[in-house]
Amino acid sequence: MATIDLNCDMGEGFGAYTIGDDKAMLGLITTANIACGFHAGDPVVMRDTILAAKASGVAIGAHPSFMDLYGFGRRRISGERPEDIEAQLIYQIAAIQGMASALGWPISHMKTHGSLGNMAAEDPILADVCVRAIKAVDPSLVFLTLPYSETMKAAERAGLKIACEVYADRTYDDNGMLTSRQREGAVIHDLQKSMDQVLSMVRDGEIPTIGGRKLPVQAASICVHGDTPGAVAMAQSLRNALAAEGIEFAPFARPPLP
Amino acid sequence: MATIDLNCDMGEGFGAYTIGDDKAMLGLITTANIACGFHAGDPVVMRDTILAAKASGVAIGAHPSFMDLYGFGRRRISGERPEDIEAQLIYQIAAIQGMASALGWPISHMKTHGSLGNMAAEDPILADVCVRAIKAVDPSLVFLTLPYSETMKAAERAGLKIACEVYADRTYDDNGMLTSRQREGAVIHDLQKSMDQVLSMVRDGEIPTIGGRKLPVQAASICVHGDTPGAVAMAQSLRNALAAEGIEFAPFARPPLP
Amino acid sequence: MATIDLNCDMGEGFGAYTIGDDKAMLGLITTANIACGFHAGDPVVMRDTILAAKASGVAIGAHPSFMDLYGFGRRRISGERPEDIEAQLIYQIAAIQGMASALGWPISHMKTHGSLGNMAAEDPILADVCVRAIKAVDPSLVFLTLPYSETMKAAERAGLKIACEVYADRTYDDNGMLTSRQREGAVIHDLQKSMDQVLSMVRDGEIPTIGGRKLPVQAASICVHGDTPGAVAMAQSLRNALAAEGIEFAPFARPPLP
Amino acid sequence: MATIDLNCDMGEGFGAYTIGDDKAMLGLITTANIACGFHAGDPVVMRDTILAAKASGVAIGAHPSFMDLYGFGRRRISGERPEDIEAQLIYQIAAIQGMASALGWPISHMKTHGSLGNMAAEDPILADVCVRAIKAVDPSLVFLTLPYSETMKAAERAGLKIACEVYADRTYDDNGMLTSRQREGAVIHDLQKSMDQVLSMVRDGEIPTIGGRKLPVQAASICVHGDTPGAVAMAQSLRNALAAEGIEFAPFARPPLP
Repeated sequence: MATIDLNCDMGEGFGAYTIGDDKAMLGLITTANIACGFHAGDPVVMRDTILAAKASGVAIGAHPSFMDLYGFGRRRISGERPEDIEAQLIYQIAAIQGMASALGWPISHMKTHGSLGNMAAEDPILADVCVRAIKAVDPSLVFLTLPYSETMKAAERAGLKIACEVYADRTYDDNGMLTSRQREGAVIHDLQKSMDQVLSMVRDGEIPTIGGRKLPVQAASICVHGDTPGAVAMAQSLRNALAAEGIEFAPFARPPLP
Repeated sequence: MATIDLNCDMGEGFGAYTIGDDKAMLGLITTANIACGFHAGDPVVMRDTILAAKASGVAIGAHPSFMDLYGFGRRRISGERPEDIEAQLIYQIAAIQGMASALGWPISHMKTHGSLGNMAAEDPILADVCVRAIKAVDPSLVFLTLPYSETMKAAERAGLKIACEVYADRTYDDNGMLTSRQREGAVIHDLQKSMDQVLSMVRDGEIPTIGGRKLPVQAASICVHGDTPGAVAMAQSLRNALAAEGIEFAPFARPPLP
Repeated sequence: MATIDLNCDMGEGFGAYTIGDDKAMLGLITTANIACGFHAGDPVVMRDTILAAKASGVAIGAHPSFMDLYGFGRRRISGERPEDIEAQLIYQIAAIQGMASALGWPISHMKTHGSLGNMAAEDPILADVCVRAIKAVDPSLVFLTLPYSETMKAAERAGLKIACEVYADRTYDDNGMLTSRQREGAVIHDLQKSMDQVLSMVRDGEIPTIGGRKLPVQAASICVHGDTPGAVAMAQSLRNALAAEGIEFAPFARPPLP
Repeated sequence: MATIDLNCDMGEGFGAYTIGDDKAMLGLITTANIACGFHAGDPVVMRDTILAAKASGVAIGAHPSFMDLYGFGRRRISGERPEDIEAQLIYQIAAIQGMASALGWPISHMKTHGSLGNMAAEDPILADVCVRAIKAVDPSLVFLTLPYSETMKAAERAGLKIACEVYADRTYDDNGMLTSRQREGAVIHDLQKSMDQVLSMVRDGEIPTIGGRKLPVQAASICVHGDTPGAVAMAQSLRNALAAEGIEFAPFARPPLP
């Protein structure tokens, strides 16, 4: 019987601010990507999110990005040396790793956030930066990333453990990349189509592309959104639909508890 | 033969900004307290400072403070819950610990910066916060702190390793605390007086107080300033004077290399 | 027939973050205090809030605080020179004044936020700082402040226009100050008691104190909260109850339109 | 007799950090572009810089950029809506305008900083954003910008007052733009060549290009750097050499004093 992971970004508040309904999402997902204080998150939010994930038995990972609270990590920022971005990633992964270990619920993976993730998926240099940062802090961490991306290729070259995540509500181009949001048909609004795509990817191991191709994929996780209107309801629908197909849910990696 | 450590705050730049002549100071000191990105420092500055300390054989430690870049950690900030300050300290210590380990030059201690250090030295609750943060990340880290302070007492209660630091250019009151800068005679401007006080503390194990008392002290380190005008020359003078008395220099704790 | 102003803090989001239901509150209040980018707010949030207030005919003012996004202006921060806090206030007031004028809806007042407001209400030096900052930018601005506070006294000394704000849900001590939240009975939870107090202050010009005194007050505005659970419903109740007593609503100062 | 302005970026410290020798530069230049708190600068630095410029009789202007203290405004940031960048510029210009007026030394111009300036010089949409921001705050402000840039064209379309600035140490391509630093020969290291170029531009009104053309220019100001090693000495050399040619120095716009 097939199992799949559901991952969601989480802990993206800051100070007095909150975003998303983390508590509800923790009841639906199996893995949480926790912001590390650069695009969102602060030590208090991180601690509370780690403890809430632990209480829910949800696996966790580092979710680092650019130092860009104002832009929530969504602005594209260029002009920095690759080794300096690497230092920023190492800092963030190390901070959450140490905090999570102190709280008895170690991280098991890393997933980049926002524009840094998008840029690294397309740029081999940035992709290598991500991979080197993971290896520098802890080579046993899994890299949660997009299939057919530069980041996946860089992780493979480096011998890093990889988990591929797929999207229920985004179409794929013939290269296996998410269709650009600039193009029509990038987002799937029809629930049945969305479910058909997910089942194809999760059960059959095939990504259907907008050009009609079928690309092989080992889908380890489905990314669900936590900060859009109706996020909790959508995640619940997805989970119900998958369960109805007999698919079970489990994290792609478990916390390396002592 | 007596040995003593010389410690200095370091890596306190941010982005395009630098402060202090870290390179020169690294040639004179044996231990560096490295800012962790909250009151000063950023991942790039931290990486460069760790590597420079490694190249100089200088031991390093975490130097966390309030999240207060604008105030350089010198503003007194109140109104946060103790456990939330603890989370901020854990984050900072974990970040530099992970980064330093990745660079092959692990941290061996923690010393609080600025107002947080001053406030914790007087406040048992904040003192406990510092101690718990160290223990949460790594109980083998040494707490570099002031003798007769609440932080030292809290560290003793918790069984943490302690290194006491003394000042060459500040007088002490009869309770063994630094004389408040509000009071006359808080700062020692005369070089000979400064040296006499240092030798009393380092060689004889006695703090001379402004009230004429002599308080016992196990001085493990002398704090030298890196960000004041003439800082390098003053550190050099101190080092020369101590060397002339036959005192040698060594870090109070060595990096726990593998 | 008596008229009263209802004021509310507003525009306290930042980047991707929002706080409070500004849109709903704008339908209930007559004056908005808009955050200026230091404890909350950013230029985009400020623009949108100014335009929304303009569309609702709600008067606006500057709502500056400490440079403390993490603490939302609620942390007490000390150790800065008064003239430096004055510069921070001038910067914030000038920023929103210029932006509001550019958008055709000029500010008519200033009200300090959070800890800065609390500290200035008790400290004559900080109170003078606030007054000097207003005068430096525009001496025609009204200072919206607490009766019997140091800020009100400083504004009177300086000949500044003053509007006194009162609270519906907080009791007053015999000095006319809000009862400290540390003390029992600081917050009024009973709606009828709250309304009785408001009517006493607004209609009769008397503050009832916890010691049984009645202190004279010229209440120009009632402060309603926008960022607490049920804020909109509470503001609506207050407005309805006041209207039932024949009280009408109008801003204490109108935008100085050309 | 020809006169020319020398302009320099200034007030680019933040909190405990300083950059450049503003005091020395103020003795050599006639116009200062003052950072507004987003890429550098804070209210205290701004106040001190405005007062120092006033004491030196140096004209001042707003020097806004991206909200990017970490990158000092040098990182290219994309993904924001043009109207949102406009709001950020309005905020910054308004803040310094109000502060400078309060200090009795009003600003007379605006010049964009770093990457925002570079990007706007090439992008008509961003160029219009800059122009609209100036007009929104004060249409009498001069836009200090590069000849042949999109910003100059946008300012001309909008009827804004323009001052063209030229560089002593950078070559120009055949389109009148600064030669990209990626290309060889972008920077002029030879002092005589630098002086020849300046005299051609200032006295003869011609930009010599790397392709051998001569493009007409009305040079109103020469940009001198304040934050590079030897900046003060270079500015002094330039000033001496121009003076030796009988050129006098005066700001391109004087503060609009009452």
